[in-house]
Amino acid sequence: MGTESDEWEVILGVDGGTTSTVCVCMPHLPFPDNLPDPLPILGRALAGCSNFNSVGEDVARETLEKVIEEALFDAGVKRSAVQAVCLGLSGVNHQKDQEKILGWLRSTFPSHVKLYIQNDAVAALASGTMGKLHGCVLIAGTGSISYGFTEDGREARAAGAGPVLGDWGSGYGIAAQALIAVMRAHDGRGPQTMLSSCILPSLGLSSPDELIGWTYADPSWARIAALVPVVVSCAEDGDQIADEILHNAVQELALSVKAVVQRLRLAGEDGKGSFPVVMVGGVLGANKKWNIGTEVTNSILKTYPGACVIRPKVEPAVGAALFALNFLMKETVANGHS
Amino acid sequence: MGTESDEWEVILGVDGGTTSTVCVCMPHLPFPDNLPDPLPILGRALAGCSNFNSVGEDVARETLEKVIEEALFDAGVKRSAVQAVCLGLSGVNHQKDQEKILGWLRSTFPSHVKLYIQNDAVAALASGTMGKLHGCVLIAGTGSISYGFTEDGREARAAGAGPVLGDWGSGYGIAAQALIAVMRAHDGRGPQTMLSSCILPSLGLSSPDELIGWTYADPSWARIAALVPVVVSCAEDGDQIADEILHNAVQELALSVKAVVQRLRLAGEDGKGSFPVVMVGGVLGANKKWNIGTEVTNSILKTYPGACVIRPKVEPAVGAALFALNFLMKETVANGHS
Repeated sequence: MGTESDEWEVILGVDGGTTSTVCVCMPHLPFPDNLPDPLPILGRALAGCSNFNSVGEDVARETLEKVIEEALFDAGVKRSAVQAVCLGLSGVNHQKDQEKILGWLRSTFPSHVKLYIQNDAVAALASGTMGKLHGCVLIAGTGSISYGFTEDGREARAAGAGPVLGDWGSGYGIAAQALIAVMRAHDGRGPQTMLSSCILPSLGLSSPDELIGWTYADPSWARIAALVPVVVSCAEDGDQIADEILHNAVQELALSVKAVVQRLRLAGEDGKGSFPVVMVGGVLGANKKWNIGTEVTNSILKTYPGACVIRPKVEPAVGAALFALNFLMKETVANGHS
Repeated sequence: MGTESDEWEVILGVDGGTTSTVCVCMPHLPFPDNLPDPLPILGRALAGCSNFNSVGEDVARETLEKVIEEALFDAGVKRSAVQAVCLGLSGVNHQKDQEKILGWLRSTFPSHVKLYIQNDAVAALASGTMGKLHGCVLIAGTGSISYGFTEDGREARAAGAGPVLGDWGSGYGIAAQALIAVMRAHDGRGPQTMLSSCILPSLGLSSPDELIGWTYADPSWARIAALVPVVVSCAEDGDQIADEILHNAVQELALSVKAVVQRLRLAGEDGKGSFPVVMVGGVLGANKKWNIGTEVTNSILKTYPGACVIRPKVEPAVGAALFALNFLMKETVANGHS
């Protein structure tokens, strides 16, 4: 990196999640159907959260501009070399959100530069399908969302609405349910659970009453979601409440995929057709015994036996760049320049 | 009010809820077992939220000092006339919280003035029992909590842990469940519900997707809890999802009372003894057909037929003052000055 690569025309891919933002700079490869392995990444930069719902519009905008500038600097290319930018951003849930971000970026790139603004789930899908928008992606990290596309361009999403609106399969959802179970065991509304004796010491608290102040002290969901490994460990050690919470999370995550698949008819009219399901996020990662990702996969396959589960080998920011590459190629073909 | 009443020795009662704070000033009545009706209120003042979890410690402290000063001014009495202050404050969940508030107030009153710091549920209980700490109180407003005392001074609480920790029977809980149902109906995870066509227009939104931005835009729970009447109205019009949400809320609220009653053995060993249940808060108020308070009462009576449900006629701040009056008398008796 940092070498002089002015000969390149480049594309940028941005993945803006709730925790951090990544920008990668890739060459404008001529044959996106036949990509080199490994993919050539000219530059990469990392910044903080760019979800304007979480940090506000000014901070989000600055973060995006900064991460783009740093990725270009890392690649050693000039801004004028940029042909297209794809931003996959958490917090983009509506056309109005897309227009807002487009407004921020349009002024910093000349008009011939293609700008694609998408939800961060789209970047994650593209990271598993090498840039093609087809199939369904399930993200289960601090938050959770399911997002799908048909080959003819229809799209649908489920969940991804944040902590207030009930994403119970997310890391936040799992951990919040565990904290609720601790409170209920403490005040007599619910059964005793190993979660109490495991979660409280891990937070440096001596009584469940102190959990109230703890949750108020910092509203960050990631801080609560960080308790997921404790919940998994309790379930692995046989705690029934923790086990139920994880089973509910599996149901919720699988349901969000199935809702998208059904609405888009991704599995065809008979429900047996083949389609990709890209799965990403810490909640779906491998655990010792209790593997949430495997359970979600099994539940999806029971309903849709043609689902092809993909665990991406590249990061979502690269997916965003590949998405831009694909779209550029399609537009070139459509304009008769191929 | 505002008359010169320097001859009075007075007590102050403060009710600090999540939405507002009320302070009343009452004369130090000699016979709290035989109270005049109506009660003599010398002064009253109203201020904003004094829950330090919500607004921070500095604002909470200033609000409490201000509301006390204004109530004294309204009563036309000097600070030196104050014999006792009882503060019932939401956010006081732990002994550390009590000590913190005591630290704020101790410097503003001479050492002979009795200061009692309690959860706001205690003021609400006292408003139904005329100052005696015996029985169980259920508050269901924006938040919900159940709090009980035995005559020999044992106490227990259930719920009241805030929105993250699952107070599903609260106004916030009911409305959040309704918003979740709207999202699930929209993305195919759940059944269609009348809630969608009733809630969205009432918020000026055209699509459920816009709910995500709406919930992020303002984290105040009261704003969400304000949707309870829409949920009740949908249930009254026959919507099954809204009906289920209200039934779940009834179960949760009754469960929080039953958990306290059981832990304290308020109904005696056979579960049939008589004890007061004080019920307050907007959620428990009378509706046209679907009356949450009546359903909660029925559920409690089914388990504990000796429960005497009381709807207080005075406000919680007066309950706090009556609590102080009772305690002052008990201490006077204990010291042999009666």
